[in-house]
Amino acid sequence: MVTMYKMKHINYKDVKAERVEEGAKDTTIRWLITSKDGANHFAMREFEIKSKGYTPLHKHDWEHEVFILEGKGIVISNGKEERFKKGDVFFIPSMEEHQFKNTGKKMLKFLCLIPYKED
Amino acid sequence: MVTMYKMKHINYKDVKAERVEEGAKDTTIRWLITSKDGANHFAMREFEIKSKGYTPLHKHDWEHEVFILEGKGIVISNGKEERFKKGDVFFIPSMEEHQFKNTGKKMLKFLCLIPYKED
Repeated sequence: MVTMYKMKHINYKDVKAERVEEGAKDTTIRWLITSKDGANHFAMREFEIKSKGYTPLHKHDWEHEVFILEGKGIVISNGKEERFKKGDVFFIPSMEEHQFKNTGKKMLKFLCLIPYKED
Repeated sequence: MVTMYKMKHINYKDVKAERVEEGAKDTTIRWLITSKDGANHFAMREFEIKSKGYTPLHKHDWEHEVFILEGKGIVISNGKEERFKKGDVFFIPSMEEHQFKNTGKKMLKFLCLIPYKED
């Protein structure tokens, strides 16, 4: 059976923000576009990190494509730190260690997209 | 030979904005993350449309994942119009007709991600 998908149109705030556990601090995730919408190749998620919060320091066998929507912070990758701000873009290859920290006073918001991999 | 890719970190404004032709009006595209960076599954592009400009009304056999960064406008899809604003999210399935128009006075900016498909 072929399922026909239609255009989905929401605001990101319509999606429930879920708490990110395991190694994160004050971080939530919204799954904005997923395979349930018919998106079979990649998923769009929105993260929010409170001041002084962070995502886990980890690595995994899929890549990230990131766009910073609001706020500022640092990425820690392979022992080095890089500052980032609104409008910055990251490609983080598969198996590269990474962590996002909010070093500002306001909420840090970014998109982080991941593949649905078959390889 | 296996090419090792490293984290890429830029600001979207670092990328040259190229004019979109064929059916578009006052629209530019920036290719922010592509297969040249090691992104083999999907590409991140940023579009800017001036007031009263638009993307082509078209359809194609790949999907779009869209996030509205700034501005407002309408999407035309299958003869219907939907208004959108900053923070809105679209999933446009493969083969669904679509067009983005800037109906505001300010620049419309959005991300539009597409798959590198093998199917």
